[in-house]
Amino acid sequence: MNSAVYPGSFDPVTYGHLDIIERGARTFDHLMVVVFRNAAKVPLFTVDERLDMLRQVTSHLPNVEVDAAEGLVVEYARRRGARIILKSLRVVSDFEYELMMALMNKKLNESLETVFMMTSSEHLFLSSSIVRELASLGASVAHLVPPYVAEQLRLKMKQAAVRPPGAGDDGRTI
Amino acid sequence: MNSAVYPGSFDPVTYGHLDIIERGARTFDHLMVVVFRNAAKVPLFTVDERLDMLRQVTSHLPNVEVDAAEGLVVEYARRRGARIILKSLRVVSDFEYELMMALMNKKLNESLETVFMMTSSEHLFLSSSIVRELASLGASVAHLVPPYVAEQLRLKMKQAAVRPPGAGDDGRTI
Amino acid sequence: MNSAVYPGSFDPVTYGHLDIIERGARTFDHLMVVVFRNAAKVPLFTVDERLDMLRQVTSHLPNVEVDAAEGLVVEYARRRGARIILKSLRVVSDFEYELMMALMNKKLNESLETVFMMTSSEHLFLSSSIVRELASLGASVAHLVPPYVAEQLRLKMKQAAVRPPGAGDDGRTI
Amino acid sequence: MNSAVYPGSFDPVTYGHLDIIERGARTFDHLMVVVFRNAAKVPLFTVDERLDMLRQVTSHLPNVEVDAAEGLVVEYARRRGARIILKSLRVVSDFEYELMMALMNKKLNESLETVFMMTSSEHLFLSSSIVRELASLGASVAHLVPPYVAEQLRLKMKQAAVRPPGAGDDGRTI
Amino acid sequence: MNSAVYPGSFDPVTYGHLDIIERGARTFDHLMVVVFRNAAKVPLFTVDERLDMLRQVTSHLPNVEVDAAEGLVVEYARRRGARIILKSLRVVSDFEYELMMALMNKKLNESLETVFMMTSSEHLFLSSSIVRELASLGASVAHLVPPYVAEQLRLKMKQAAVRPPGAGDDGRTI
Amino acid sequence: MNSAVYPGSFDPVTYGHLDIIERGARTFDHLMVVVFRNAAKVPLFTVDERLDMLRQVTSHLPNVEVDAAEGLVVEYARRRGARIILKSLRVVSDFEYELMMALMNKKLNESLETVFMMTSSEHLFLSSSIVRELASLGASVAHLVPPYVAEQLRLKMKQAAVRPPGAGDDGRTI
Repeated sequence: MNSAVYPGSFDPVTYGHLDIIERGARTFDHLMVVVFRNAAKVPLFTVDERLDMLRQVTSHLPNVEVDAAEGLVVEYARRRGARIILKSLRVVSDFEYELMMALMNKKLNESLETVFMMTSSEHLFLSSSIVRELASLGASVAHLVPPYVAEQLRLKMKQAAVRPPGAGDDGRTI
Repeated sequence: MNSAVYPGSFDPVTYGHLDIIERGARTFDHLMVVVFRNAAKVPLFTVDERLDMLRQVTSHLPNVEVDAAEGLVVEYARRRGARIILKSLRVVSDFEYELMMALMNKKLNESLETVFMMTSSEHLFLSSSIVRELASLGASVAHLVPPYVAEQLRLKMKQAAVRPPGAGDDGRTI
Repeated sequence: MNSAVYPGSFDPVTYGHLDIIERGARTFDHLMVVVFRNAAKVPLFTVDERLDMLRQVTSHLPNVEVDAAEGLVVEYARRRGARIILKSLRVVSDFEYELMMALMNKKLNESLETVFMMTSSEHLFLSSSIVRELASLGASVAHLVPPYVAEQLRLKMKQAAVRPPGAGDDGRTI
Repeated sequence: MNSAVYPGSFDPVTYGHLDIIERGARTFDHLMVVVFRNAAKVPLFTVDERLDMLRQVTSHLPNVEVDAAEGLVVEYARRRGARIILKSLRVVSDFEYELMMALMNKKLNESLETVFMMTSSEHLFLSSSIVRELASLGASVAHLVPPYVAEQLRLKMKQAAVRPPGAGDDGRTI
Repeated sequence: MNSAVYPGSFDPVTYGHLDIIERGARTFDHLMVVVFRNAAKVPLFTVDERLDMLRQVTSHLPNVEVDAAEGLVVEYARRRGARIILKSLRVVSDFEYELMMALMNKKLNESLETVFMMTSSEHLFLSSSIVRELASLGASVAHLVPPYVAEQLRLKMKQAAVRPPGAGDDGRTI
Repeated sequence: MNSAVYPGSFDPVTYGHLDIIERGARTFDHLMVVVFRNAAKVPLFTVDERLDMLRQVTSHLPNVEVDAAEGLVVEYARRRGARIILKSLRVVSDFEYELMMALMNKKLNESLETVFMMTSSEHLFLSSSIVRELASLGASVAHLVPPYVAEQLRLKMKQAAVRPPGAGDDGRTI
């Protein structure tokens, strides 16, 4: 059986992620969507909240499993018997980072294969950090995330004056 | 009338910004240079200080207006009746970020148009963060910012041992 | 008055070009779409055929003028009293080429300004050479060019076994 | 069953191609390596010669099939019942071209999926055109192509003073 | 005499750095490997620890000197009588950053020359931040850094639950 | 002694090349500027004409030698006892091509080192093909090439209606 791991932060899951998940579910027998805890970033949503949103938006996909993990992706894949890591590519800087990661994961585990899918053109501009930034500015994110996620974002933003993460250098503004 | 918004942090305004402002003022009937508050960054200069510097260095341009705003650039443009957002491009990573922003702003407001100007070759290496870093190291910035801005930087650096912001990964040093 | 020149080969005009023309016509008072003869390439369509197609697909835009020229774009703009050259950007390699061209045109004529618009996300993959290649392979181009252009392509392909131009290196195939 | 098409010119097949073929054969149930005739280029080897070399170097891979085709890759895949196109990525310019191709193939056939593998680091510098150029200069290609292919190159070079194809602009020399 | 400065954070030195140091030592008469204090980052190792590791791993290279400094690289070079700054390039984003730095250092000191070497293909994926991240996750770094450095990393990780620095955006995970 | 080879087409030599030659002559003890015959391109100037122009414009540099060669650059360097190949970088596409070339030359001859210098910002837009194109259109190239080269271009253009080489895809026009 052809099992693949699709790792990410999913903070929160967007229509861009969902597009890759649906295409991955058609391409591989079994797809594990795995939230990796990233100790270096303060996330907007807890791991449990992110798992909940992922499960809601992938409930129509029987061969998709949602999970959380820590540590190396290659370790997780080995433990779960998956031979494929699925990644998406949007832009050149993604490409270079992912090329480096794929070369290194190859060193860490020769039998694992990283395969890439290109983001659909209508999602090229889309990232979790842009969704968080728009939501913190009170803008609509209805066209960027599924309704359930949009509602969770609305609730999260009400809880506090949330500081928009990830804004770029030199006044990059949406 | 052809009104354009040129958004940024301008922390502080450089000769690179001023070049775009002068070229924008020749290309459009009215140019609004707008300092956007970026909650995710601790700026070196306050918004008022940045507005003051911008007004000093653009005082010779009658069709240029200096303003400050919060929130989405597309909202500001809509409110002010501007149909054009002006951005500058220096390097490939700018290009990809700005391509994403332009595609998204198009989604947020179909009637707004983002137009780009290429930075002049003598300013390709120039950014506000490099100016701040050089100033914090005590180096001359006389060829990078107008004299009034250089003086404000000198005064600001005297106020405190300012921590250089924005230095790159892995020992990138000027 | 704010006049802009949009230069190109338009061999043939695509929906990507038409999108830029419509946005340029909204942004500038007068837009000259100019077919430049390129002595180094054997075109699929003659200059007259390209002018005819451009006139057909821009007939709904009263402030758009279609013309043909030879020589330097900066010379044409000077002769016609236009201060703006309009270019579109799709990908990083476009960006670098156009950055070089803009820097050089600046040297050739300081008072001319090159401004850029980003291609819409649904046209990012689209170029005249891809349209010619698809047409030569008998594939439908109905979603890539206006109906009048699709018909001209069909007629042109019937005239001869046309050699697909512009295929990439090392077996790049559509 | 999970069938994938790996299209290319393979003029000639290199260790870089072979690496992708072996990894593709481990990842998919059935892999079709397909030589596409490219009317726009004069190849060094005939299609039959290229098929012969591919069959020789993949004879140890039972689930790999070697074939030749003309026209659109998406048409070939549809005809053969394959839902996956396999491509390799080496450098940024590959990435941008392949992003465009993937977006367009998606338009031509929604149910087809293009997946990418990154070239191994020891093959990043390797392409068929560099192999042809080295061979035409009399340099050894023993570390770049399998022995059988090296021998065919040696024979082909003896036949004639072959003009090295694909040399870059402005004196790019190996 | 041909003296060159190779500046960096070296937090810690990797086989990628060591490769550049060895090639630089063959190319120039005298090579100064200089740890620059970067006030904007909290390093994993102190400057003294980094100097110690650098001295250990370069002890076989008689024309290599290890030093630490603060401030501008161009100032350090001027003070030490070096006319050359040595930098390494791995990826496109390095290239653009370093192009900007080289253009600016040229402005700061016309007589200084920055020369670049490309990282060897087996180290393309390698950076100090990836080494720190792997070490913090308990993975082996034996193939990425010299044995002495691997031992210092092991000791440092035992001292505390160290927060992995430098993880990318949106769930970029190794 | 520190000898370096600077290979190229130099068809014709530009101020961009001359800038690299002057900086290379300051950095290395001996610099060989070598015209490589490129069988795949029809040059504008003969090898002898290119050598003559190079000798004229480098006559003030006593440690610069001008030569012509065929075949592999690594072979030439080995034959001449040079351990260094000097290359210039302007743009990202240069970078990727040169990264591949440097990795391959390393394979062909481990003891040779390729070092790179960044083109000065005022020459970023400059290439021999743009010079040829401008000259063929009758535009002034006085700011792009030394006076002696400008004169040779003028004479060459008078000889015939020269076809402008190297124009880009899809109506890329100067």
